[in-house]
Amino acid sequence: MRNLNEHNITDEVVRRFENTANPRLQEIMASLVRHLHAFAREVNLTEEEWFQGIQFVTRVGHMCDDKRQECILLSDTLGLSQLVVAQNHKRPSGVTEQTVFGPFHLNGAPHLAPGADIAEGVQGEPCFVSAYVQSATGQPIAGATVDVWQADTDGLYDVQHPEWHDMKLRAVFETDQQGYFRLRTIKPCNYPIPTDGPVGDMMRALDQHPYRPAHLHCMIQAEGYDRLITHVFVEGDAYLDSDAVFGVRSSCIGNYVRHEPGVAPDGTRLEVPFYTLDYEFVLQPLP
Amino acid sequence: MRNLNEHNITDEVVRRFENTANPRLQEIMASLVRHLHAFAREVNLTEEEWFQGIQFVTRVGHMCDDKRQECILLSDTLGLSQLVVAQNHKRPSGVTEQTVFGPFHLNGAPHLAPGADIAEGVQGEPCFVSAYVQSATGQPIAGATVDVWQADTDGLYDVQHPEWHDMKLRAVFETDQQGYFRLRTIKPCNYPIPTDGPVGDMMRALDQHPYRPAHLHCMIQAEGYDRLITHVFVEGDAYLDSDAVFGVRSSCIGNYVRHEPGVAPDGTRLEVPFYTLDYEFVLQPLP
Repeated sequence: MRNLNEHNITDEVVRRFENTANPRLQEIMASLVRHLHAFAREVNLTEEEWFQGIQFVTRVGHMCDDKRQECILLSDTLGLSQLVVAQNHKRPSGVTEQTVFGPFHLNGAPHLAPGADIAEGVQGEPCFVSAYVQSATGQPIAGATVDVWQADTDGLYDVQHPEWHDMKLRAVFETDQQGYFRLRTIKPCNYPIPTDGPVGDMMRALDQHPYRPAHLHCMIQAEGYDRLITHVFVEGDAYLDSDAVFGVRSSCIGNYVRHEPGVAPDGTRLEVPFYTLDYEFVLQPLP
Repeated sequence: MRNLNEHNITDEVVRRFENTANPRLQEIMASLVRHLHAFAREVNLTEEEWFQGIQFVTRVGHMCDDKRQECILLSDTLGLSQLVVAQNHKRPSGVTEQTVFGPFHLNGAPHLAPGADIAEGVQGEPCFVSAYVQSATGQPIAGATVDVWQADTDGLYDVQHPEWHDMKLRAVFETDQQGYFRLRTIKPCNYPIPTDGPVGDMMRALDQHPYRPAHLHCMIQAEGYDRLITHVFVEGDAYLDSDAVFGVRSSCIGNYVRHEPGVAPDGTRLEVPFYTLDYEFVLQPLP
């Protein structure tokens, strides 16, 4: 077919998908093209604006390397990531809610013993985490694998520190027979998402702050349960209602309790104030 | 606002654009987010599919350099480029229609004298182009700047030949007092768009051929007229009805006439068959 105009081109693009071997791919591409074209028609996109978009997407791709995923950051800041998470993990009340994965998880973090300090050599206020992992049916879950990761007090993950060559502030723990895992870390701080790339430019142009409320990332995997990827946010944080990536759930806010200097939960005596976080995760059994 | 779910997140993302200084940017971003989210909801996009999309866009960005623009190729093959062209250049009947620009135009092509050969040292069937540029109101347009560019018989533009360091098969001419420009080249061949990148993978997955019907690209600029970016396609080409980038207009098909060896239009005697193309371009006066 020739002589396509702005009215009939969409049907022709979609028609050409008719021989796609994978019906799911065909469905996704047809919907994507219809919405992409509808967007361009709705705003009557000009060629100059189209080219600005091309340049923006090109910059987003170029910004990506093995330590920086600007495409995910773009998806996060446009709310797409949290939308996809939400529609794939509809939780019954009482089950811990899923939030965005974020771009800073690494595979291969060290497996540490119960109570280990994941913040060795990192400045910050000490924080002792004790968490209970249970099934929605009420039983403790022993032997679950728990990935934790977080940013430092400058708001940077280890991979964002050019001078850091080891993993810091991330580790893997296992729940004990009673369903508990414990660790020492530093109290999370709120921080801006990386703003030195095209997503940062976009947020400035949209007059949006780039901050995420303070949080500890957790990924909990146990046989027979839906993998839980979530955050434990810090109650009272100024950005709980305006998270740059739309990830906050009330059920994912933890009470980080401040203590004066003294004996910490692990029996050591601290000369500085410290925090404790007692938290419960509830996992959804697989059908 | 917290506790966003797949139903209310879109309104919250759009609401956060409310302080955008540029109202046009705000309009575009709001429409983009609404359509992007509607797509993800409509197909109930899974996290795995979302991540495949992230990886695909990342690859598209990585494939771009100063000689390759995979983002434009993606826009072209999804029909977005031609849609944007069409809605920005609604032509009255009789005016030459606008088609996609494509990713292979270069600024700074050599300005050549009337009748010059843009295919010196390039294999192919000789082709003599004589074109008349006129206004929609009937007057010849003298002094118009005419960029022409095309692929060789292997379907490659000069920038795609790693061993070619000079511009070939592209040049800038000027129309004479009677509105004509003339040049020698080789007859264009149909060719596949570059398929060694993610867009090629996409087209294979969609069972689509990557061919464009043979064409000569032309960009004609004259003071007081809408800049014309178009192609002159070759009548009879097998891909006129299935152009991989949706660019064919009936009014943009030229009659490339074959001649037996003999005296060419420029007076030289050729020992091989050659082609002539006589063509008319009609430019739209600016309002």
